[in-house]
Amino acid sequence: MSQQLIFTNDVATQLDRLINAHTAGRVFVIADENTAHLVLPPLTSDCKYLADAKIITISAGDTNKNIETVAHVWKQLSDNGATRSSLVVNIGGGMVTDLGAFAAATFKRGLKFINVPTTLLAAVDASVGGKTGFNFNGLKNEIGLFREADAVIISTCFFNTLPVEELKSGYAEMLKHGFLTSADECNDLMSTDIMQIDTARMLTLLERSVKVKRDIVTQDPTEQGIRRALNLGHTAGHAFESFAMAQNRPIPHGYAVAHGLLVALILSHMKAELESSWLYKTASWIGNNYGTLPMTCDDYPTLLQYMSHDKKNDSPDRIAFTLITAPGDVRWGVIITPSDITAALDIYRDLLHM
Amino acid sequence: MSQQLIFTNDVATQLDRLINAHTAGRVFVIADENTAHLVLPPLTSDCKYLADAKIITISAGDTNKNIETVAHVWKQLSDNGATRSSLVVNIGGGMVTDLGAFAAATFKRGLKFINVPTTLLAAVDASVGGKTGFNFNGLKNEIGLFREADAVIISTCFFNTLPVEELKSGYAEMLKHGFLTSADECNDLMSTDIMQIDTARMLTLLERSVKVKRDIVTQDPTEQGIRRALNLGHTAGHAFESFAMAQNRPIPHGYAVAHGLLVALILSHMKAELESSWLYKTASWIGNNYGTLPMTCDDYPTLLQYMSHDKKNDSPDRIAFTLITAPGDVRWGVIITPSDITAALDIYRDLLHM
Repeated sequence: MSQQLIFTNDVATQLDRLINAHTAGRVFVIADENTAHLVLPPLTSDCKYLADAKIITISAGDTNKNIETVAHVWKQLSDNGATRSSLVVNIGGGMVTDLGAFAAATFKRGLKFINVPTTLLAAVDASVGGKTGFNFNGLKNEIGLFREADAVIISTCFFNTLPVEELKSGYAEMLKHGFLTSADECNDLMSTDIMQIDTARMLTLLERSVKVKRDIVTQDPTEQGIRRALNLGHTAGHAFESFAMAQNRPIPHGYAVAHGLLVALILSHMKAELESSWLYKTASWIGNNYGTLPMTCDDYPTLLQYMSHDKKNDSPDRIAFTLITAPGDVRWGVIITPSDITAALDIYRDLLHM
Repeated sequence: MSQQLIFTNDVATQLDRLINAHTAGRVFVIADENTAHLVLPPLTSDCKYLADAKIITISAGDTNKNIETVAHVWKQLSDNGATRSSLVVNIGGGMVTDLGAFAAATFKRGLKFINVPTTLLAAVDASVGGKTGFNFNGLKNEIGLFREADAVIISTCFFNTLPVEELKSGYAEMLKHGFLTSADECNDLMSTDIMQIDTARMLTLLERSVKVKRDIVTQDPTEQGIRRALNLGHTAGHAFESFAMAQNRPIPHGYAVAHGLLVALILSHMKAELESSWLYKTASWIGNNYGTLPMTCDDYPTLLQYMSHDKKNDSPDRIAFTLITAPGDVRWGVIITPSDITAALDIYRDLLHM
């Protein structure tokens, strides 16, 4: 992978430099209606090459991450004369970068594209790793490709206007990367007040975090082995997310990951000798920042059901977790029995005083 | 590229072996309604793994090579529980292998797939090289990917029932490969009577021909350089094809390529010192096998117009040809002026006594 990963708070200058380096042809920007309204005007006024770009606007939100929106992007590219020497710039959250990347990667068998994530979650999670795609047949990201952007510009200057929930949601993925790295990284992240981080400090934390993911993905681009380390917290996390959704009180993805991370740490203590101090420290931090998820032991069968359908399992009756023996020492594909998961959920509720 | 390329007239045995090697999961066959009717019944009765496969049938013909058909395939894969360990087998002509490969390559970010071309044109041209895709917005193969099949089974046992035009169409691409290889290969191909070739001899010729393409594609999978050698005959060929289509008397792709090849040889003599004997020999062979294309010098501006829109050109006002100085010695991206093209078209009509 030769992807350029640029951390900057001078987006316009870097974007001009990259566009100039990657194409002599026409530039197409893909943005959703919110980003087109809020983010693009200041950017296009500072950025020489964006001023002449064709803007392709799509409807915002995960419900529009579908084949109709992809076809709309293809049509706009085709009608406006995009050629193999054109360049696509995806500016937005994960929905825009995932879908825009797929549309670019499949137009005329592949245009170059640059991602500019504008949310913390997209910056830390969706911008690196090459997962592109869209929802189909009621299933999330059912259609897609592994294809890295030619360059990614990561900046914290878009985050001022983000809702608190979005910031916290992205930060949970950063903490996950911390647990894949080192005790120091975890302590540094949990001793930082999410609501008080300034733009420059956030950029430093984000750079370290994104590089953790990039290093793992580089070793295993198509998720055959070590990339499953990135699933830490997601087996229980996805179950919590689906459970909350089914109860009609949806929670942000990162909130579900934060709680799923705690369950993974408890199982890591039970099955992989992780020191118990990490459980207490993390439970306290998660409780303070992400609250609790209402549930009783009557909900366990439903949660186990969701976990058994995780697409990372080899077969539905074997629930696989990613665990750590210590921060930075990861085991993936560990099969956990339903009774151990039930025990972990009991401890989880205890730790959060539920 | 680690693509397996298998030449055989025992398709069922090889298919069983490959399916067994590539998946322990479910097998999905994509075929059009004609192939499903004519080719599949004998194959599934001999092939253990195909008997249990889910058959996804699509409508035949280039007009159905569209997003609706791709969505139909995705829906069938999704509804029938295809997972990343499933295997797709595309059985048919170029339309089926191009579209089926795209659908497989994008389902859940990529399933493995095997191509079994059933026409000579698909065997020689579409089965190797990784060009997948479908038509969009009125443009051929506007959407697609470069993605090699995990394996290709090439057999001549399907050709008995092919129309003469289809055989000749594929054979023209084989002659093109001959001119990219050696004088001996060209002489061997032109001294063979297309209508009298037996299955085994055809398999030998086909194997040599497909390997020419594979060797070029391996050096340049995404068409940045030497792969443009494969464009020999296609600059004028595509123009002839579009011209005939616009006149409501469409000709098979390979017929257009045969005539385009002759124009390329004439330009090669004019601009790259190809010996004139190749012009006379090839003109005679093409006239005998592919007849003539009705045109006068009044049609030249229209033909030049089509050539200037070829997507292989760097810019519309510079028409690029692939030429040879001798069989096997190729020059690509040679810019030819309109007056030289006009002169070549005059010679072309002379040679075919038009």
